[in-house]
Amino acid sequence: MSKNQNIFNKTVMSVGEMASGAKLTVPVYSYKTPNPQGPNVYIQANMHGAEVQGNAVIFQLLELLKDCDIQGNITLVPYANPVACNHKNGEYTLGRFDPITGVNWNRMYHFDESIILPFTEQYINATDIDIEHQFKQLMINEIEQKLDHNIFGLTTGQRIAYQLQRLAHQADLVLDLHTGPISSKHLYCPEYAQTSASYFDIPHTILIPNEFDGAMDEATFCPWWHLQQAFVAKGRTFTMGQGVFNKESFTVELGSQEQIDLDVAHQDAMGILSYLQHKGVINAAEYKPQEMTRYACYLKNYKALYSPMGGMVDFLANFGEPLATGEPLARILRMDNYGDGDPLHYVTLDHTVLPILHFASASVNQGTELYKVFSDFFVLD
Amino acid sequence: MSKNQNIFNKTVMSVGEMASGAKLTVPVYSYKTPNPQGPNVYIQANMHGAEVQGNAVIFQLLELLKDCDIQGNITLVPYANPVACNHKNGEYTLGRFDPITGVNWNRMYHFDESIILPFTEQYINATDIDIEHQFKQLMINEIEQKLDHNIFGLTTGQRIAYQLQRLAHQADLVLDLHTGPISSKHLYCPEYAQTSASYFDIPHTILIPNEFDGAMDEATFCPWWHLQQAFVAKGRTFTMGQGVFNKESFTVELGSQEQIDLDVAHQDAMGILSYLQHKGVINAAEYKPQEMTRYACYLKNYKALYSPMGGMVDFLANFGEPLATGEPLARILRMDNYGDGDPLHYVTLDHTVLPILHFASASVNQGTELYKVFSDFFVLD
Amino acid sequence: MSKNQNIFNKTVMSVGEMASGAKLTVPVYSYKTPNPQGPNVYIQANMHGAEVQGNAVIFQLLELLKDCDIQGNITLVPYANPVACNHKNGEYTLGRFDPITGVNWNRMYHFDESIILPFTEQYINATDIDIEHQFKQLMINEIEQKLDHNIFGLTTGQRIAYQLQRLAHQADLVLDLHTGPISSKHLYCPEYAQTSASYFDIPHTILIPNEFDGAMDEATFCPWWHLQQAFVAKGRTFTMGQGVFNKESFTVELGSQEQIDLDVAHQDAMGILSYLQHKGVINAAEYKPQEMTRYACYLKNYKALYSPMGGMVDFLANFGEPLATGEPLARILRMDNYGDGDPLHYVTLDHTVLPILHFASASVNQGTELYKVFSDFFVLD
Amino acid sequence: MSKNQNIFNKTVMSVGEMASGAKLTVPVYSYKTPNPQGPNVYIQANMHGAEVQGNAVIFQLLELLKDCDIQGNITLVPYANPVACNHKNGEYTLGRFDPITGVNWNRMYHFDESIILPFTEQYINATDIDIEHQFKQLMINEIEQKLDHNIFGLTTGQRIAYQLQRLAHQADLVLDLHTGPISSKHLYCPEYAQTSASYFDIPHTILIPNEFDGAMDEATFCPWWHLQQAFVAKGRTFTMGQGVFNKESFTVELGSQEQIDLDVAHQDAMGILSYLQHKGVINAAEYKPQEMTRYACYLKNYKALYSPMGGMVDFLANFGEPLATGEPLARILRMDNYGDGDPLHYVTLDHTVLPILHFASASVNQGTELYKVFSDFFVLD
Repeated sequence: MSKNQNIFNKTVMSVGEMASGAKLTVPVYSYKTPNPQGPNVYIQANMHGAEVQGNAVIFQLLELLKDCDIQGNITLVPYANPVACNHKNGEYTLGRFDPITGVNWNRMYHFDESIILPFTEQYINATDIDIEHQFKQLMINEIEQKLDHNIFGLTTGQRIAYQLQRLAHQADLVLDLHTGPISSKHLYCPEYAQTSASYFDIPHTILIPNEFDGAMDEATFCPWWHLQQAFVAKGRTFTMGQGVFNKESFTVELGSQEQIDLDVAHQDAMGILSYLQHKGVINAAEYKPQEMTRYACYLKNYKALYSPMGGMVDFLANFGEPLATGEPLARILRMDNYGDGDPLHYVTLDHTVLPILHFASASVNQGTELYKVFSDFFVLD
Repeated sequence: MSKNQNIFNKTVMSVGEMASGAKLTVPVYSYKTPNPQGPNVYIQANMHGAEVQGNAVIFQLLELLKDCDIQGNITLVPYANPVACNHKNGEYTLGRFDPITGVNWNRMYHFDESIILPFTEQYINATDIDIEHQFKQLMINEIEQKLDHNIFGLTTGQRIAYQLQRLAHQADLVLDLHTGPISSKHLYCPEYAQTSASYFDIPHTILIPNEFDGAMDEATFCPWWHLQQAFVAKGRTFTMGQGVFNKESFTVELGSQEQIDLDVAHQDAMGILSYLQHKGVINAAEYKPQEMTRYACYLKNYKALYSPMGGMVDFLANFGEPLATGEPLARILRMDNYGDGDPLHYVTLDHTVLPILHFASASVNQGTELYKVFSDFFVLD
Repeated sequence: MSKNQNIFNKTVMSVGEMASGAKLTVPVYSYKTPNPQGPNVYIQANMHGAEVQGNAVIFQLLELLKDCDIQGNITLVPYANPVACNHKNGEYTLGRFDPITGVNWNRMYHFDESIILPFTEQYINATDIDIEHQFKQLMINEIEQKLDHNIFGLTTGQRIAYQLQRLAHQADLVLDLHTGPISSKHLYCPEYAQTSASYFDIPHTILIPNEFDGAMDEATFCPWWHLQQAFVAKGRTFTMGQGVFNKESFTVELGSQEQIDLDVAHQDAMGILSYLQHKGVINAAEYKPQEMTRYACYLKNYKALYSPMGGMVDFLANFGEPLATGEPLARILRMDNYGDGDPLHYVTLDHTVLPILHFASASVNQGTELYKVFSDFFVLD
Repeated sequence: MSKNQNIFNKTVMSVGEMASGAKLTVPVYSYKTPNPQGPNVYIQANMHGAEVQGNAVIFQLLELLKDCDIQGNITLVPYANPVACNHKNGEYTLGRFDPITGVNWNRMYHFDESIILPFTEQYINATDIDIEHQFKQLMINEIEQKLDHNIFGLTTGQRIAYQLQRLAHQADLVLDLHTGPISSKHLYCPEYAQTSASYFDIPHTILIPNEFDGAMDEATFCPWWHLQQAFVAKGRTFTMGQGVFNKESFTVELGSQEQIDLDVAHQDAMGILSYLQHKGVINAAEYKPQEMTRYACYLKNYKALYSPMGGMVDFLANFGEPLATGEPLARILRMDNYGDGDPLHYVTLDHTVLPILHFASASVNQGTELYKVFSDFFVLD
């Protein structure tokens, strides 16, 4: 290591208390730059309990960033949701939803669209810089209001989500590290940020519209998109992804849940640094995207296939390879039908799809999600 | 028993398959009338797995209806959701949401508002009877389309919900029997049907607006309300609750979950028959509402109070009695603070409330729902 | 408060770490006496996660002991098992077993009978006091050996249990505070300590033999019982419950799980102080047992009744009142049989029993434990 | 298909009822021979809910046996425990224990050693054939007594286990198909049957003593072993594995849980047929064991390694390859320690081991089982 290594700062954020009084905390790491020339970045991992690989990626990012020329402030938050990541049911981690309420942990962020119009009216003539500064502050104020001023209190998930969101609103670029169940790597990317998708080393991109549905990525880019639209409607032109509207948020799906691999995490971290280099957050030309075929599909064409029957599934289709019409995605074993029925049912579709992920267990009920596929897709340039 | 007892019909509906191939079925009981003069009724119970008292109420209704003068068709469905009612986690029934996905079983019903406008245009000059007949058929067709024609399939919950909804759309009056966790009896009632609330023997009514959020009651009354609004906007006057728009849906909360009591169920059944008598479904003057103070509040004033800390809760406030400002709802024990902190925390509010239900366990996380209360309420006439 | 109030000591014991690194700790309170004339006492609560009332009892004991004349050292441990007491599955606390392995948390204590014989050989001629001192130390050493010297490590439950057991072995009298599911108050008492049962304010006593099955009470009294037997076999007479063999352990079942009530806890605490006064731990004649009929039964006659069918149970039998032959314990509702079978099944027995507790939920599988009853019982003097 | 294909028989066994009344059944397949010259065989799968690959193996066995020359009766039972195999908690199957009680489904079988001595006294002079016949019948009678004559009923797991055991006692050779969590293939084999282990295509064998601990394999071979010992003690010589004591039971661990693969199942089935050919159950010389290094270890040397800390585990050691002293089995990530502690902890042992399986999730508590290893092992001839 050189004597010029960057020094990170570490703080600890309290996000919850259990019945015994045990406090749950989240560590927050940050590399700060005295005179940031590039955008600020926020990266978190493990909002869903079983999706742990992002913690290893943050480990590798912290290591690699020690020796980078950093141009913007970078905040990294592993173990974003300790309530979820500590919750075991049997051997596995019950991770996608609050075990008490069933609410998806990644649908509890906040955005109130009604703040947009008054803001544009107030700041229609402000400078670009001032607009950015004031709107960031407004979003942070909104969250602090939710956190601190409610006599009826907050749900467990809101208390966690709002504290994370308060940090994320201070950044321009937001990466929320998730995984699928058994899954290929894939990326959720706002439609307007499509060109950025090619800087990650991820072969599948889902292009999402600009609607808020409670997730971290949406909670951080949708406000800016709505603001930009509202200014344009008032005749003041801004372009998303440029100038003070250089705001992008991604949900990065790192592969399968319930596992970490530090070597793979090192590769994942380099892909993220490639994106940060592209955006000018770091000045490190050695990080550049790998060559690969990158497929994309619009969210409306990203389809879940639900099991037509209960049974035990032999998943056949490989991820990332187009599957021809009629080729089986899976075969479902039904031993109770052996001898007097059909013990094997083949699941097929009537058009070519690109399989992205499948269910984590062979055992399914009728109606369990079997696969998610790109049902209409194209190659990104 | 007399020779004139009514005879019910029983059928069995397949709603799901488990991994072993085990079929899950739902029994459907109906009393049919050759020439129905009164409205048709649909009553279901146990959509949430732990909320079982409604099954006992249906038992008592089936018994009592044997000897009633029945004027409309009545369909009764206990064990509406066998996936949920059979799902144990530890000793208790994991009942409010799909254990795989976390989705609330009572948020999976269907209503597509876009069917309203074309319908009003097509039938603006039709007879009242024809409008009712055609719209019922349209809703049933919509559901059958969802059930049968989707290459990507249905979720486990949709398959159950849509089959129930297909039955419910054939009725005019819909009662969905639920319970709270530890709870008083209370009723969810559409705002326009407020006068009907006084015919149930239930002391607390929540008046809900006409917005669809996925629940059975909303899925059955909202379409008619939207239709009525659309006709009125086109100059054709209909009134909700009258004539062919005599459509009402209620979620009836029968008390606490995880228990059945057949004697209490007999009382509950008589309260429901009082409502059916009021609506002309039965001709049985002996069923009339009990005298009691009936409190009501608008949904926006029905508030959940979330725990400000983790701990163990001694629930103090009684249900159904206004609790004065500053009086404690609960005290939270925190033994870890004994000796060097505050081992007892009292939870109070700054205004009078009417406690309706509380959490089912003493042990809470920070942010767990402690109580639900009417925070602004009035007495129904 | 008087100026003479006793001062307790508080320490914190680390018992586990979760996946996020969160530490779980247990608070340990103790009242120490400079010259203990009476026996030492160890009291713990909440080893099973949902059994929380004991924490409130420890709160009240700590309060009441401030003003007692204390003659022996008293150690009190609430939240004995934070892994269990923080583990939610749905609204309830999954409390009786490790959610990963299924092992009952109260079956992980340690006793290796092979230590007895060598000890009696070594100390056959030692003084009574020395025997007691050396055997206590041996048991503590055994536990410390288990805690610290195993290259393959300890299970989650062993690490907790052994740390608690290390504290308990320093006492003469051990109370492990539990609850049943829906339950009357009852007491597990070693057969040799039967006379002590009448000093608790608990109407039902189960007399247990001197066999070790992994529970805290057994782990603390069985070693002394085996030691006494071994000395007697070698011709040196000791009597259990007397002199240096004045060792007693009880599992105190405080009623139902999933609830705390601080007022009831105050009563519970006074019953425990009555026992401590009887044993000379405190000098406070105001604590004396209430008059009540106390029933007892031997463990072999404490029977679980398993459901003969799946269904929904209306529990009919009251606790603590003998139920005559043929009277129903419960009726089981089976709506699927309504119309073409038997919708109500009554559960009866062929002899008089005393119902003690029943299952916590109305919904049962075939084979779920419905009730536990004294099937042969007598009145304690 | 040829005209000479064997025809199997299929029956359905009722093993349980859920709260809704839903019946759970188990299909039972059998190939019967008019004049069996070889031993009878019983094969079951999926007693633990998540361990599903055995169902696919039974599928392949049923297919392959159609064209075999069968010399003994063969009974095959997939989905042995539908309560377990249908029980989802989140995406995974909660499979190893009853979700209500925590009791391991494979510890509920029955053996009462007290039947042995009276039997040997009664039949000391009987013929070999008669001894075998009478003892089989005695074991079946014992089970039927347990199933049918208990006023307090049976637990859910006992009802399932006893019905399976009743079938298994009619066989001479018993195979219970399981899987590990993330696991190599391995075999539990009675010490006396060691030579048979080399006829399976399984590279790791655990040699178990002849003690009953509640599992299916033990419940079927231990009675015979105890009987043989008792006869030998009385001077009548029998040898286990020979003549009428040709009784062997194995637990066959087919790899990892939560997945089925029909192609792998075909290989697994051929390995089982190799064993059946060796024992004369089939006459099909084409089934013979593969050449491979087969490692064995005694049960006392089959060690679980428990995590020394909470954290997230990168499992490093490969299955089936000896791991040298000091080489890491795993590294545990602890991001909360990054910056002010040790974020990576390497887990090593002080002697060479053979890793067999590891935990199914990266996220562990302190004390969670990380790996199971052969800590002292040798090569089977």
